[in-house]
Amino acid sequence: MRQLFMMVAAFAAMTASAQFGPQRGNPVVPSVKAEVEDFKPATTNQENKQFPAVNSKRQVRAQIVAPKATFVGLDIAGKIYEMTKDENGVWTGTSEPQDEGFHYYQLNIDGANVPDPNSKYYYGASRWGSGIDIPAADEDFYTVKNVPQGSVNEVYYWSSVQQKMRHGYIYLPNEYYTNPTKRFPVLYLQHGMGENETGWSAQGKTGIIMDNLIADGKAVPFIIFMDNGLDTRRPGDPDPAQMRRQFGQGGPRPQGGQRPGAQGGRPGGFGRGGFGNFFEAFQEILLKDIIPMVEKNYRVIADTEHRGMAGLSMGGMQTRGITLANPTTFAYVGMFSGGTFSVDDLKDAADFKKTNKVLFMSAGGRETRMAEGDGSVGKAAENLKAIGFNAHSYVSPETAHEWQTWRRSLYQFAQLIFK
Amino acid sequence: MRQLFMMVAAFAAMTASAQFGPQRGNPVVPSVKAEVEDFKPATTNQENKQFPAVNSKRQVRAQIVAPKATFVGLDIAGKIYEMTKDENGVWTGTSEPQDEGFHYYQLNIDGANVPDPNSKYYYGASRWGSGIDIPAADEDFYTVKNVPQGSVNEVYYWSSVQQKMRHGYIYLPNEYYTNPTKRFPVLYLQHGMGENETGWSAQGKTGIIMDNLIADGKAVPFIIFMDNGLDTRRPGDPDPAQMRRQFGQGGPRPQGGQRPGAQGGRPGGFGRGGFGNFFEAFQEILLKDIIPMVEKNYRVIADTEHRGMAGLSMGGMQTRGITLANPTTFAYVGMFSGGTFSVDDLKDAADFKKTNKVLFMSAGGRETRMAEGDGSVGKAAENLKAIGFNAHSYVSPETAHEWQTWRRSLYQFAQLIFK
Repeated sequence: MRQLFMMVAAFAAMTASAQFGPQRGNPVVPSVKAEVEDFKPATTNQENKQFPAVNSKRQVRAQIVAPKATFVGLDIAGKIYEMTKDENGVWTGTSEPQDEGFHYYQLNIDGANVPDPNSKYYYGASRWGSGIDIPAADEDFYTVKNVPQGSVNEVYYWSSVQQKMRHGYIYLPNEYYTNPTKRFPVLYLQHGMGENETGWSAQGKTGIIMDNLIADGKAVPFIIFMDNGLDTRRPGDPDPAQMRRQFGQGGPRPQGGQRPGAQGGRPGGFGRGGFGNFFEAFQEILLKDIIPMVEKNYRVIADTEHRGMAGLSMGGMQTRGITLANPTTFAYVGMFSGGTFSVDDLKDAADFKKTNKVLFMSAGGRETRMAEGDGSVGKAAENLKAIGFNAHSYVSPETAHEWQTWRRSLYQFAQLIFK
Repeated sequence: MRQLFMMVAAFAAMTASAQFGPQRGNPVVPSVKAEVEDFKPATTNQENKQFPAVNSKRQVRAQIVAPKATFVGLDIAGKIYEMTKDENGVWTGTSEPQDEGFHYYQLNIDGANVPDPNSKYYYGASRWGSGIDIPAADEDFYTVKNVPQGSVNEVYYWSSVQQKMRHGYIYLPNEYYTNPTKRFPVLYLQHGMGENETGWSAQGKTGIIMDNLIADGKAVPFIIFMDNGLDTRRPGDPDPAQMRRQFGQGGPRPQGGQRPGAQGGRPGGFGRGGFGNFFEAFQEILLKDIIPMVEKNYRVIADTEHRGMAGLSMGGMQTRGITLANPTTFAYVGMFSGGTFSVDDLKDAADFKKTNKVLFMSAGGRETRMAEGDGSVGKAAENLKAIGFNAHSYVSPETAHEWQTWRRSLYQFAQLIFK
């Protein structure tokens, strides 16, 4: 029950954070004065769009033409900044300084929550909508460079579990193409709640991070498969829309006492749509459909020592659940902003311990429960090292439950695995 | 000059059509009564979104919450349908019947043109924005099925011409993976004005169409490379935003008399940003960067008989210009809604004639200048057959200058080539 409590506490902390993006009910605050007028268009803008723009203090300025509107707001990081209209019907507003990295945002026009027509669109906060990348001191590691390029490939495949075609993305390193007889390890990499299979390659910049790491000799070439960890409905399952309504904005509510790590085939003690469902339903698809498909269709080293799983937030909890329930399947395990493994989890897990080569846990520095103190990833790694695990932790400086934390986590984790 | 006139006329017709999507100044008309109340959510909707919905008469119904708005309009196919508000602040409106297939659209909220938050987003009409797929009688050919799957791969590569990293998509057929020593032909496939390298794989459904055709034995497996035919700015070139403003909504204005098919290295008689620039600037990138990269990085049969080029609209005109200027480079040539090759173009083009194996021209049935009469693709094919070309034409029933025409054109063209 302690583990369950900690998972629920971690999840509650997450759901209150920025991953879920703009919410109804965010407070309306006045647009802020710019600390410095050196705004540049965001890199996430549509081609040739001057707004949104970011200044060197990381304030965001948005602009939109809406001559007949009576209210326009910039909804970012939990506040709606009230924009002001000029004589031409052009509304402009400026936010407070934002954290480095990627944030979801939206505009509110007379009560309608809409994407900003100037931004590119990303899937997160349970919708396709606007995103903005705030320049970061360390952005070099996720910047496209003239180095040997792999590719991120969009694939469809048949799911025997769901009896339908599924959709995922596979990163193949450059050497997959240049060395046509070589086989590669595979990392199965999962997104968080409110996100989908596009997140890791789009806002996560997985392909770019990996190409750069491999070119620098910091990571060995490996394959990454990115799938949808929420698309788990099987024939006869209840309507997922209803499940989502049940969870609402407060995150899932456990409905029973089954241990999250327990195997159960179909969702058990937590009820349909409960906590267990998040990893058990996806576990079935991962083990029966995804891994066999990847190992059949690609030049993969199909053994435990060359198979890893990691995920962010809910994807980290899925990783925890699936790797505990299948202790001899994955040698490399990563949880990014997804809580921790505890000594209680692992002290008697002989198969897991024998199999595991790297156990990695990370969090954003602003995720204080996971970043600091007794419940932190650092403390967990220390405790796990003491019982013999090759445990690692990482805290991303000055970032919250957002993609900059997870880009950095992947960058760190990728350097540790399959070596 | 006659050829130039016809190209300009064709282009003017195109720019007035629906490819360019919602325009400022579209007339506001009342929402229409539904002919039948059997609306279903569009397949292009975001997950679990009930609107926009389409009925069996192909009317589109949009809905958005905007409690404080005084005007909300559904802007589709050249008209803005004024939506009406209920007591809960929910606005609803219904359009006239639409053509089968894919259309760009947007919402107008109190004068702001914004994406519909319920739709997925596509690049076209020179912006990322809303799109909707209207069910079509023949949609089976672009529906995902449980057949051997290829993949559409996102790749970056270095452009020596532009001195920067470029971005494109490559379709690799299933056999590329299953038969690791086989080499394949390549089709270079271009989008139209206002679109980019994402169009053919997203709304064009290239990968799905090809997987289905190959599985049915109707097409031989080949590779397709899809790139951005408007991203041609080189160091020292003028600002492309300025070029676009110059073209405005009326399409490019030729500024001189140089024959479009003439070689000229850097843009010549048409001036920077003129007509010639559309194919000459892209030609340089295609020949110096794209084709060498594809032939180096992928298992390609790197000869003329296994190399094709096709494009839609402006991409068709680029195809025409580039294949005429490089008559021994491509054996298979396709122009979709991009005008025609004339006997005048080709009667003395000995190298082109000797090299060409299939010359394909298509148009939407509603593109009357290209679909019917003396200027039609059918008449052009007939004339070219008479001088010895293996010319083919296709007219897509009851579609305009839109993606359903081009999906069908690819479906037809792909069955003719590399055989």
